[in-house]
Amino acid sequence: MAGKKYVYAFEEGDGKDKMLLGGKGANLCEMTQIGLDVPPGFTVTTEACLAYLEHSRLPAGAMDEIKGHMRAVEQKTGKGFGDPENPLLVSVRSGSAMSMPGMMDTILNLGLGEKTLPGLISQTGNPRFAYDAYRRFIQLFGKVALGVTDEAFDEKMKAMKAKKGAKQDLDLDADALRELSAEFIAVVEKHTGRPFPDDPYQQLQMAVEAVFRSWTGKRAQDYRRQFRITKGMANGTAANVCTMVFGNMGDDSATGVGFTRNPGTGENQTYGEYLVNAQGEDVVAGIRTPKPIAAMEQEMPDLYRQLVELRNRLESHYREVQDFEFTIERGRLYCLQTRNGKMNAQAMVRTSVEMFQEGLVGKEQALLRINPLLLEQLLVPTLPPSFKGEAMAQGLPASPGAASGKIVFDADTAEMRGKLGEKIVLVREETKPEDIHGFFAAQGILTSRGGKTSHAAVVARGMGKPCVSGCDAIVIDVHEKRAAVGKTVLHEGDVITIDGSTGNVYAGEVPTVEAAFSEYLATVLSWADEVARLKVMANADTPRDAVRAQRYGAMGIGLCRTERMFNDSDRLPIVQDMILADTVEQRQAALDKLLPIQRADFKGIFKAMAGLPVTVRLLDPPIHEFLPTAQQLEFEIAHLRHLKNAARSMGELPDTLKLIDPDLFREYGNNLEKLRHSLDRYRESRLEGTLIERKEAMLRKVHTLSEVNPMLGHRGVRLGITFPEIYRMQIRAILEAAAECAKEGIAAHPEIMVPQVCTSQELKRVQVLVDEVRKEVEETSGTKVRFEFGSMIEVVRACMRAGQLAEIAEFFSFGTNDLTQATFSFSREDAENKFLPMYNETGILRDNPFEVLDVKGVGRLMEMAVKWGRETRPGLKVGICGEQGGHPESIRFCHFVGLNYVSCSSPRVPIARLAAAQAKLRENEYGADVYR
Amino acid sequence: MAGKKYVYAFEEGDGKDKMLLGGKGANLCEMTQIGLDVPPGFTVTTEACLAYLEHSRLPAGAMDEIKGHMRAVEQKTGKGFGDPENPLLVSVRSGSAMSMPGMMDTILNLGLGEKTLPGLISQTGNPRFAYDAYRRFIQLFGKVALGVTDEAFDEKMKAMKAKKGAKQDLDLDADALRELSAEFIAVVEKHTGRPFPDDPYQQLQMAVEAVFRSWTGKRAQDYRRQFRITKGMANGTAANVCTMVFGNMGDDSATGVGFTRNPGTGENQTYGEYLVNAQGEDVVAGIRTPKPIAAMEQEMPDLYRQLVELRNRLESHYREVQDFEFTIERGRLYCLQTRNGKMNAQAMVRTSVEMFQEGLVGKEQALLRINPLLLEQLLVPTLPPSFKGEAMAQGLPASPGAASGKIVFDADTAEMRGKLGEKIVLVREETKPEDIHGFFAAQGILTSRGGKTSHAAVVARGMGKPCVSGCDAIVIDVHEKRAAVGKTVLHEGDVITIDGSTGNVYAGEVPTVEAAFSEYLATVLSWADEVARLKVMANADTPRDAVRAQRYGAMGIGLCRTERMFNDSDRLPIVQDMILADTVEQRQAALDKLLPIQRADFKGIFKAMAGLPVTVRLLDPPIHEFLPTAQQLEFEIAHLRHLKNAARSMGELPDTLKLIDPDLFREYGNNLEKLRHSLDRYRESRLEGTLIERKEAMLRKVHTLSEVNPMLGHRGVRLGITFPEIYRMQIRAILEAAAECAKEGIAAHPEIMVPQVCTSQELKRVQVLVDEVRKEVEETSGTKVRFEFGSMIEVVRACMRAGQLAEIAEFFSFGTNDLTQATFSFSREDAENKFLPMYNETGILRDNPFEVLDVKGVGRLMEMAVKWGRETRPGLKVGICGEQGGHPESIRFCHFVGLNYVSCSSPRVPIARLAAAQAKLRENEYGADVYR
Repeated sequence: MAGKKYVYAFEEGDGKDKMLLGGKGANLCEMTQIGLDVPPGFTVTTEACLAYLEHSRLPAGAMDEIKGHMRAVEQKTGKGFGDPENPLLVSVRSGSAMSMPGMMDTILNLGLGEKTLPGLISQTGNPRFAYDAYRRFIQLFGKVALGVTDEAFDEKMKAMKAKKGAKQDLDLDADALRELSAEFIAVVEKHTGRPFPDDPYQQLQMAVEAVFRSWTGKRAQDYRRQFRITKGMANGTAANVCTMVFGNMGDDSATGVGFTRNPGTGENQTYGEYLVNAQGEDVVAGIRTPKPIAAMEQEMPDLYRQLVELRNRLESHYREVQDFEFTIERGRLYCLQTRNGKMNAQAMVRTSVEMFQEGLVGKEQALLRINPLLLEQLLVPTLPPSFKGEAMAQGLPASPGAASGKIVFDADTAEMRGKLGEKIVLVREETKPEDIHGFFAAQGILTSRGGKTSHAAVVARGMGKPCVSGCDAIVIDVHEKRAAVGKTVLHEGDVITIDGSTGNVYAGEVPTVEAAFSEYLATVLSWADEVARLKVMANADTPRDAVRAQRYGAMGIGLCRTERMFNDSDRLPIVQDMILADTVEQRQAALDKLLPIQRADFKGIFKAMAGLPVTVRLLDPPIHEFLPTAQQLEFEIAHLRHLKNAARSMGELPDTLKLIDPDLFREYGNNLEKLRHSLDRYRESRLEGTLIERKEAMLRKVHTLSEVNPMLGHRGVRLGITFPEIYRMQIRAILEAAAECAKEGIAAHPEIMVPQVCTSQELKRVQVLVDEVRKEVEETSGTKVRFEFGSMIEVVRACMRAGQLAEIAEFFSFGTNDLTQATFSFSREDAENKFLPMYNETGILRDNPFEVLDVKGVGRLMEMAVKWGRETRPGLKVGICGEQGGHPESIRFCHFVGLNYVSCSSPRVPIARLAAAQAKLRENEYGADVYR
Repeated sequence: MAGKKYVYAFEEGDGKDKMLLGGKGANLCEMTQIGLDVPPGFTVTTEACLAYLEHSRLPAGAMDEIKGHMRAVEQKTGKGFGDPENPLLVSVRSGSAMSMPGMMDTILNLGLGEKTLPGLISQTGNPRFAYDAYRRFIQLFGKVALGVTDEAFDEKMKAMKAKKGAKQDLDLDADALRELSAEFIAVVEKHTGRPFPDDPYQQLQMAVEAVFRSWTGKRAQDYRRQFRITKGMANGTAANVCTMVFGNMGDDSATGVGFTRNPGTGENQTYGEYLVNAQGEDVVAGIRTPKPIAAMEQEMPDLYRQLVELRNRLESHYREVQDFEFTIERGRLYCLQTRNGKMNAQAMVRTSVEMFQEGLVGKEQALLRINPLLLEQLLVPTLPPSFKGEAMAQGLPASPGAASGKIVFDADTAEMRGKLGEKIVLVREETKPEDIHGFFAAQGILTSRGGKTSHAAVVARGMGKPCVSGCDAIVIDVHEKRAAVGKTVLHEGDVITIDGSTGNVYAGEVPTVEAAFSEYLATVLSWADEVARLKVMANADTPRDAVRAQRYGAMGIGLCRTERMFNDSDRLPIVQDMILADTVEQRQAALDKLLPIQRADFKGIFKAMAGLPVTVRLLDPPIHEFLPTAQQLEFEIAHLRHLKNAARSMGELPDTLKLIDPDLFREYGNNLEKLRHSLDRYRESRLEGTLIERKEAMLRKVHTLSEVNPMLGHRGVRLGITFPEIYRMQIRAILEAAAECAKEGIAAHPEIMVPQVCTSQELKRVQVLVDEVRKEVEETSGTKVRFEFGSMIEVVRACMRAGQLAEIAEFFSFGTNDLTQATFSFSREDAENKFLPMYNETGILRDNPFEVLDVKGVGRLMEMAVKWGRETRPGLKVGICGEQGGHPESIRFCHFVGLNYVSCSSPRVPIARLAAAQAKLRENEYGADVYR
């Protein structure tokens, strides 16, 4: 077999082949090939990685290739790998097709050893620099390639600083660092029981293998699972071997990271931070607080000019905001890495608008480059503009939005408390990749060290969570689980509020408000609306909801759940009367009271949505949901009875009570006054007597109504056919409201939707009611009412009978919550509590189908229903009103099967509008294998 | 518009066009045309009926046509309609395309009136006969055409008999009957407030219209709903106008009904009953007890010969057993009606075999003519042959099978009690069509009057319910709701047992036994097996079940539910230990105890089915089903605690007890000994202490396991993946049993089936377990185990993913119980209690989909699953193991979609075998519109 090529020099690698070379490797190749100043190097491919992981050894020939490429690098740099005189040092960095920042390993300064140290010293004339590089290398190599923990090194470093009276690492001199290097070597050798490898090629091989192994490390796996990175998106990591350049070679050296535009605001300005006389990891780790790039204009004007030129070349080449790393070695600017910049939503939206205006991207690209889910950030709560509270501390505004929560000082506790449903703010000196699970659990992140490109800031922005970084007024004691801000001491569990937009930190909880739309967002969404074929509706149940939906740009209401109106405290007793009714007359009396209330609600909604359709779903849930549970009623009845009995025996209190019920005695025994008061009230009003009866009647009804599987029980249209008077009342409320609107010159477009339909017979029965009521309303009002009549498609059989249902229904609306339950035979509440998390964790199901539409099962049913429905009624309007209707991936499928609209909660409407546009732009990518 | 033809003379009507002429009309035409002696007449078509029902008047021209045909009849008979000298009398009978015996109306002797009576008297020379005919006509016409109830006439008749000292109707002389006729006329005129119509054509038109109206009468509608007669099968009734012939013209006249073969046994003999000097209705109504046809050979040898010849001509023409009516008027034999004979199963089966042997029918027809559901009768329980109890009375063996139940004297009570789940025997003097709902509710029917062709006998045979008729030893008092048999008095609610095969009636309940297969049945079923493509398996859960399945001819076991094995009282505590286990080790300990038990069960089943496949379903139901309910546990715990408290206060008994719990005091207060005994046992063993703890642990577990919708919860493979040790134990039990069988030379064919699968990932996980266990078992036993691995298809998503599942599954088995629930979103228990009966009654759903497969919804899903599954795995074996698998209509669909087998309960296996053959023979009838 001809040998496979496993290694590519930066001059030869294909900058587009990220699957093979990883994102970083491909970019290094591309940058080299477009003439940027990249230190010489090469990439070992992801194929080598996969082969290594499969066989636990590098594939045959790979090391020979690597050696060949090293010789080429030696030629380009004029240095020698392992050369004692003029040693060549390299970095070995991971990099997969998908960016997974900080999730995999990197080794710097490789090639250093006892033999080459003298060469580096004489090369640089800087023994301190050389020993510093050496001790850094020993620690990184020890950790990454040999599994030694950081703690062992940190301890030695601490001890050394104490011994030398040094405050910062920088205060240690060459001798101290030489001493430290020896101690570090000892640490590693003690851990491994073997001598520290001194041969540079042995080091290189071990480093490449360690980088490869980090692909399957726990952190990396967690990250891929969390962000749903599949093998088709990234498979294995490449290892990039690159000549070391040093930002810590004195004051004409520096290192930094830059963004071609401001990733927090989107502003068109070179943005970033740098540290003079430092190595890159110092910036990223947040150990020293760096300066903003702007400062460089003063400090190093020539280099600043070079940097701006680099920035311009990157953007005009990539036509996307770039996040790049650079190092200045003795006055020469090297670009070490570039990738598409991760930005918050505000920045993504603004850069889309401005890059379009600048002609850098077309409108399509401007829409496609924004992940719709990112817009959630713009819809995250902020502090109200009117809020004038005094901040207890201020840090850097690292990721926008405000959040309140209980302070927690470590990721594990954050995860644990988060699972208990608590709101958490993770407070750390600085964060590391291993804290990632704490980020997932927290509402927001606060660090006392690190800049706006520190780990905490980058990750928080990626997740759209508020973050304040570098808040050095806070002194954290992790072991004691407390933090001091001046004289104030905060303990775990104390509530604080952080504002990631200003960097302010407040004690206690500050109520937040919804964000207003920016002009940029409005522009992007208007472009989206031009492109999209799917309309985006909102789910809204009240006039107030409807006003809110309008604000988010909803093009109508796709789901108005009438039962939500039933639950208000002033209505519930009437609804309960309706349920407790023994006769049709009693039931009608209760319904007569509900009619004007529902009618007023509908009118309010129609007014708010004037000119837009409002889809009203008739009563759906089983009626026992409007009654308390049996358990609660039993408890209340028992309690009332005890009171009653106690009243009877009032004369002999408290002894009788003790005998009747020791618990009740304990409860009231110490507070006889309270008991006497209760009993007096009971005697006066005899209210509890009636109350007992009512509660007992409720309990009987609850038992009558009790069902084994209420989800599959007497609900929806089944209820509407059993008690036609209920549906009739609701239909009347809708049509009378519409008639009143018509008289007032308001264009109302009600759509009456029947839930839980499984056969066209059901729809026919309701249609008869609708026709009867319509005639009555039109006669009484003297107005013709315009409306449509349609069916929820949430029962599997409705999908099968779509052709017949469409003979009657003028529209369909997929209720994918119920449809998903029925398709999987999963009860959502039970599944999410019992086995669904395990199914997701072990990969039996990729997603929770109640959040992301299950295309292969539920979606396939939907496609058939659409097809059969439109065979009968070609113009049939079809939408989706399940929760998944607000999820971009689901929206893409809805577009694919030809739905007319999606309906989702109001705050997701902007996301859905953008997703609908992207679905249209990417419609050709969807293959016939969608159901495989 | 050219006039439509609404009336056909018997000489011209097309004997095949039952939709137009009704069954009776078509047969009258056909009989006339093949030369049988049918009294002249004509048929008014069902089209005329439908037109009448639509417009409430006969269509234009119809009466003119009728008059024209009447003139032709006048010519043929030489009599005149309304002629005072020589009057022509006719009958007007209903008759639709489907036989609905007794459900619609008939009028006799029409044409009689004050004007024509003298003519009839002089014609016949028999005034008594004429007045008798007249009073019969008045009553029938009054009832049918004018809505007068029978009671009013019966009262007059009773009074007249009392006045004349007559015991029977026959004892009344001409004068009495003339008087009675006048009284009857008065009754009618009082009811209608108008003179009785005397014009014969007016009578005729009113009679035809009344017959047409009876199509929409309640009885007829109930019958059609009950027997699922749709418009496509029969639409409207025809009215047959036929010259009256009289069996009551003296001793050379008679009337009777015949069967060309014995409808109770199938024996090839002319069978039937006749009454000398009587009209047909006397036979049918059971008012006089008729003689068997055999007696005619002695009494009227010449007529008997004519009758046998008629019988032979009918059978050789129709090639089917005929049920015919005849009348002998003054020595001349007329055939009035013929239709295919309704027979019990035994007779159907025997005649199929014998008619084939005689060359009358082919094998296909022999199979097709038997309704498979009829075979249920052969599988109805009978009294054990060994039973020698003494009968309290004996009647006629009118419909075979034995039944026990509480006596009920009217149909309404029977229906009511039946709905409460009580077993009922309906006991009546005689039954009428309006009692039909009582038949549906009853286990069996007992009448004190009427023969084997009485209404009760015919209807009971049609329904396959045991019936004893003409048991005149029983004297019934309907008003007092009691019956006397000699000195014994039976009250409503007393239990009796009737044996419809012998006519015996026993006091109390006699345990019954399953029927053995007759040789005829074995023959028919062997023919069926030759023809059928579908195999028929049985559902069986124990070795005993398996033996039974074999006896019914099952070709394997299609569903062995392992959880049934868990429910035995010796196993349940172990299963509960498994459930209560807090650790995997505890759970494993319980499973280790279950393993040998399950293994022994499987071995027993494999042995019983040696050579045939046995499909074992792994644990399916949610595990809380193996624990008592929370309610029950709470009750038991409270009870045990009371006992415990009482024990503590033993000294102060019973007063303390009274205070602690008045209910407990009442319960034990009168039986202090019992309480002391309980308490002593408690003190001795302290068992209740442990018991309380165990019950409390159970209660906690019940709460943990409680689910909102258990049907859609943690069950089936979800459970198997959560607790793999459970499935591993079951798989081991199956494979070890198979290995042991193999060693003993028994061919075991286990098939391991996974329930509730919704994604192929689940199936893969179980496959891994199976592979592991197989390797272990094969190593330990040194035997290779042969088995197949497959999936239940009972989750909708499994249908959608059938193509992927078939990559792993070697067979599919449709679990149509669960699949139906999920497709309809109906929880069976809830639906059948709450709304499904209403859905069926109001026609929203034709059938209960849990009994008859819903082809249009569930069936359509099945078809897709079969198609996609076989695209992946062309040889995929597919079966059905839901309850519907034993229903002929569902079996027909299973054949249509290409299943390999159906599996049903053992007693339905013979039905399924015949249905499978019919499905094959009728496969071309299934159209592409099956899902419309």
